[in-house]
Amino acid sequence: MTATTEARTATRETAPRVDVPALEETLLGRWSEIRRNARALLADPRYHRVEGQTMDEHRAHVLDQIRLLAAEGDVLRAFPGRLGGADDHGGSVARFEETVVADPSLQIKAGVQWGLFASAILHLGTQDHHDRLLKDAMTVDVPGAFAMTETGHGSDVASIGTTATYDPATEEFILHTPFRAAWKDYLGNAALHGTAAVVFAQLITQGVNHGVHAFYVPLRDPDTHELLPGIGGEDDGLKGGLNGIDNGRLHFDHVRVPRRELLNRYADVAADGTYSSPIASPGRRFFTMLGTLVQGRVSLDGAAVNASKLALIIAITYGNQRRQFSGASDSEEVVLLDYAEHQRRLLPLLAQTYAGAFAHERMLRTFDDVFSGAKDTDEDRQDLETIAAALKPSSTWHALDTLQAAREACGGAGFLTENRLVSLRADLDVYVTFEGDNTVLLQLVAKRLLGDYAKEFKDIDATGVARLVANRAADAALHRTPLLRVVQTLADGGNVRRSAGQLRETETQRELLTDRVETMVAEVAGALRPATKASREEAARLFNTHQHALIECARAHADLLQWEAFTAGLDKVQDPGTRQVLTWLRDLYGLTIIERNLAWYLINGRLSAGRARTVTSYIDRLLARLRPHAQDLVDAFGYGPEHVRASIASGDEHERQEEAREYYRRLRASGDEPRAEKSAPRTAGAARGKARTKGSTSANPGVRSSAAPV
Amino acid sequence: MTATTEARTATRETAPRVDVPALEETLLGRWSEIRRNARALLADPRYHRVEGQTMDEHRAHVLDQIRLLAAEGDVLRAFPGRLGGADDHGGSVARFEETVVADPSLQIKAGVQWGLFASAILHLGTQDHHDRLLKDAMTVDVPGAFAMTETGHGSDVASIGTTATYDPATEEFILHTPFRAAWKDYLGNAALHGTAAVVFAQLITQGVNHGVHAFYVPLRDPDTHELLPGIGGEDDGLKGGLNGIDNGRLHFDHVRVPRRELLNRYADVAADGTYSSPIASPGRRFFTMLGTLVQGRVSLDGAAVNASKLALIIAITYGNQRRQFSGASDSEEVVLLDYAEHQRRLLPLLAQTYAGAFAHERMLRTFDDVFSGAKDTDEDRQDLETIAAALKPSSTWHALDTLQAAREACGGAGFLTENRLVSLRADLDVYVTFEGDNTVLLQLVAKRLLGDYAKEFKDIDATGVARLVANRAADAALHRTPLLRVVQTLADGGNVRRSAGQLRETETQRELLTDRVETMVAEVAGALRPATKASREEAARLFNTHQHALIECARAHADLLQWEAFTAGLDKVQDPGTRQVLTWLRDLYGLTIIERNLAWYLINGRLSAGRARTVTSYIDRLLARLRPHAQDLVDAFGYGPEHVRASIASGDEHERQEEAREYYRRLRASGDEPRAEKSAPRTAGAARGKARTKGSTSANPGVRSSAAPV
Repeated sequence: MTATTEARTATRETAPRVDVPALEETLLGRWSEIRRNARALLADPRYHRVEGQTMDEHRAHVLDQIRLLAAEGDVLRAFPGRLGGADDHGGSVARFEETVVADPSLQIKAGVQWGLFASAILHLGTQDHHDRLLKDAMTVDVPGAFAMTETGHGSDVASIGTTATYDPATEEFILHTPFRAAWKDYLGNAALHGTAAVVFAQLITQGVNHGVHAFYVPLRDPDTHELLPGIGGEDDGLKGGLNGIDNGRLHFDHVRVPRRELLNRYADVAADGTYSSPIASPGRRFFTMLGTLVQGRVSLDGAAVNASKLALIIAITYGNQRRQFSGASDSEEVVLLDYAEHQRRLLPLLAQTYAGAFAHERMLRTFDDVFSGAKDTDEDRQDLETIAAALKPSSTWHALDTLQAAREACGGAGFLTENRLVSLRADLDVYVTFEGDNTVLLQLVAKRLLGDYAKEFKDIDATGVARLVANRAADAALHRTPLLRVVQTLADGGNVRRSAGQLRETETQRELLTDRVETMVAEVAGALRPATKASREEAARLFNTHQHALIECARAHADLLQWEAFTAGLDKVQDPGTRQVLTWLRDLYGLTIIERNLAWYLINGRLSAGRARTVTSYIDRLLARLRPHAQDLVDAFGYGPEHVRASIASGDEHERQEEAREYYRRLRASGDEPRAEKSAPRTAGAARGKARTKGSTSANPGVRSSAAPV
Repeated sequence: MTATTEARTATRETAPRVDVPALEETLLGRWSEIRRNARALLADPRYHRVEGQTMDEHRAHVLDQIRLLAAEGDVLRAFPGRLGGADDHGGSVARFEETVVADPSLQIKAGVQWGLFASAILHLGTQDHHDRLLKDAMTVDVPGAFAMTETGHGSDVASIGTTATYDPATEEFILHTPFRAAWKDYLGNAALHGTAAVVFAQLITQGVNHGVHAFYVPLRDPDTHELLPGIGGEDDGLKGGLNGIDNGRLHFDHVRVPRRELLNRYADVAADGTYSSPIASPGRRFFTMLGTLVQGRVSLDGAAVNASKLALIIAITYGNQRRQFSGASDSEEVVLLDYAEHQRRLLPLLAQTYAGAFAHERMLRTFDDVFSGAKDTDEDRQDLETIAAALKPSSTWHALDTLQAAREACGGAGFLTENRLVSLRADLDVYVTFEGDNTVLLQLVAKRLLGDYAKEFKDIDATGVARLVANRAADAALHRTPLLRVVQTLADGGNVRRSAGQLRETETQRELLTDRVETMVAEVAGALRPATKASREEAARLFNTHQHALIECARAHADLLQWEAFTAGLDKVQDPGTRQVLTWLRDLYGLTIIERNLAWYLINGRLSAGRARTVTSYIDRLLARLRPHAQDLVDAFGYGPEHVRASIASGDEHERQEEAREYYRRLRASGDEPRAEKSAPRTAGAARGKARTKGSTSANPGVRSSAAPV
């Protein structure tokens, strides 16, 4: 079988076959009904992005849309039952993630209102705040901003400059912005719509700074919509995307906030200014308060996976219809997805999207366990935070890569707004730096990996660690450690020996991926060990020297998390055909990670040069095997045309191709077809051309020149 | 020295030092005066992009702008002196490339009008066309479209569906669009402004199809602006970027075009319908006509390099001012560019931008030689086309990577339109697929590499080649071949032996990079050899199997081209300090390529595992060395604030940082600074916290949680 003949389209009979409806159900996961309902609702054009709107129109449109969503009600699942919610945290996030298919601006505006503003009242406030403030936040009667980030401090929240100084004389906090860098910035709802905000500031009372706390602060007169006295602001204006959201800046000039508006679940100030908190350590208190932010990261991960799904539906559907350059036969042009390079560009992204989908579903269950209280220890929360800090960078960067690859795979058509890829990419761009900059998050993950490692080896001194690392690096047979407990939810076979090296074997892939994380962590840990005894300056220098290696550890961990989730997901697939195809797809994901890091495996003696060569050739074989199933695999994402809304993925291209082919068929049949020049009788200057006008032999598009679609 | 202390800013005294004005002059190259004049002109706000305009406003604005440019005149350098031009091809492209700093839409609209529409009249037409048509095209009295691409055929121009059938009875061509896929598409000036077009169609006369030819065709009534009878059209609408250009579709219903409007430099049709051409081979004729398109690729390469320069000016300037997280000392926050990861993300991109700039200058000289007629053999043209096909993909993809990395390095601020990065990226996006899809162009390069190889080894049979490849792959000592003649313009030392492996030595880098191209080409050539004797189907299959490897060859060749140009550029630098710094930068570029392909070098026995490890550590050392010079290296690009126009690169951030630091200094001095909680007297719930509120020890941002700038 050849690449061009084995796999024309997915509709062709090939064994095995994917059971598309069953796979769709698997992918929808635990909250399938909620997701289906959300998709049904979001099929309504009232929720869709209207391209070409001005920024002002788009902002107004999205505000209307979230009010529609609020009225519809199901979007409020995460809130308390007594206030009209359903106390359903996992379901709420699942639902929220689906919103991205309507318009990412709608998703993020909803995220600001319910996921941040109202959630802060819910999670950081107490009964009094819930009773007074939550209902209006839920209904969007009070659109609200989440005023944490400042122009001068984004990732380093602890260092924000805004102060809230308690004045016992009036029992008020004095909220103040001491300098320009302390302006609140990039806040959704701040430029226009917000009539209140949860403001984060350094709480100072009785001469002591107790660190960052949250306050409920009215911003604008609900009638005149003017900013209240002492409050100033500025519009962030146009952005690279998400222009349906009115991001803006806020600053405060000695604004007085009543004592009761301190969201006091984790800390309180008595009338006389005495500070108290159930959490003794200021550091732990800070992280506890910020812990509620994990919800944002979890849902961005899910939304990013969904955006990747849309991109691949569009590019693969088009790639199965679009033809360019003739191949083996003269009249028959080749479908794009039959080109090996096209498969190389798209199918590994499809594999990673599946891995991301399985990993997200798994994380969402963990999230639900924590937020429902089912499994809510400190350790559970920390695990969740680590997983979210690993997966959110992975899936959001992947979404950008996938949207861009899809755009390029669709050529000039991909650049037209009507085909959605460019707008989605523009909107998703900021996902990689907001709700925790990806690079900063990966350092959190690395720190956790180091911490676990240190715990495990705490009885071994520095020399011991160095020796251990050296031994491990030289050791081709692998030993699992409890280091990656979070990952290893599959039954562990104990001492697993590397087989003769069948790269397609699950255990071989697992060992290669796990070993890399463990060895890299051990190496960095060894290199950082002197920091514990060094001066602060020297320790800082040492950390900085190994910053890149730390981030690489975290990335490798994220890859492994996704691979393990994909592998666990395979077990739930009953249909043998589907299982076979998904196993190939999982193998493609695993081998793509290994290929990307092939130098590491070679340098560290984990793969011989001979075996390393087989990685790429096995990937090539997997691509050829998967190609006939590509359409089924994107169809199983379960989005309808009302969600995809891209003209090139609508079947129009197929129709155009058929019409053109039919035209040429008829022309040939009619006998009126002009001859090609080579067969023309010789005239003065012409003829003698050996090549046909249309070009010569091959399926290689490289032999022709190309056009200038400007 | 530590990473945080050695290199606070570029203004600090460090040896060596870069002579910024001299380096700027070097980078401006042969056409420095033209570039300086263009930049001076483009400092005028009338040429600048106005963000926030609607599509309609932007289109009208850009049309006004190109008319301003036309009136100013210097933009017409490439046209004949007798018509007001200067017959200066290299200078014209140099000038044109600079336009990207004003607005990429302006650049591309100018490219459509002068580089494609008017150039087609100039290069494909003859005296009569020049006399009648060129002046109005030059002045933009006739805005014109370049109607080549169709909805159904972009890269495969030879297969377009539009026909021009000659009717001797009236001495007219009948221009016709036979089906929907043959609509002309993505054409600038087609949706709105174009009153004429150069239309490409299959020329049919006396029952013979002579392939694609160009015709001058009026489109719209110049007064009413209505499309002329028989012509239909459609607006492509919004795009991912470049919305200042009115791209659209056109179709023709038996539109009659007078015989004289065939642009007949390379082929003509006599009154009776007899076809003639000075180029006998239809294939060669086709490529000759399309050859003029190379100008577009050359100038996109230059524009893409300029866009990368802007991105790095913005990100590196901001990275030198912005502080986040405290490092070695408590009160002092660390400048972003002092973080090793920040250096890792930006400095290799800076190195590649320099390589791209040197390579572009070199190509532009070759272009000028060819188009001025100084060196204008078929071989010269083919060399130029191959270089352009290699560099344009490299620089345009690099521009997208750089703009995105810069955007992420600036965090939320990078996402604001006022800081330009997002708009530039949106506009540059389509550069990777228009004027020759990058992937298709790389296949052209690969084909040329294979052709050269085949010529060289034509006397060796397939087995011989296979053996040769095997020998070479096993051979650590390298031998240069004439294969890469185009590249090797430096004095060639003959049999160069690999030194003990000093990766910083020029010859070692050259050998490693050259060897990789040669070996990969030889391997693919060996694998493809059976295709010459195979059936067409089998040959197509074989090509497809190796498509990815072919593209990898071409990429490796492009890397080498850029590296050689950078190396040659070093020779022209007189100042020792500048030369030292640029040598480090060139080393960084070379080693980054080697690191990216490290697995290849290991698998093929070119680097030992031990030496491979040193690649990464040497890169780390280079980053630390280059960091103090980063600002100088972007300042040498020679753009002023009126070109950069990004608020975060204006010094505002520095001012904000200084104001904040001054505030804290005064607060400490005043004695009113609130104590941190750890030093507070014990109260009910508080205290006992070991960590300070602000977080504990390290320079590692990973130890803090991060914000949610939504």
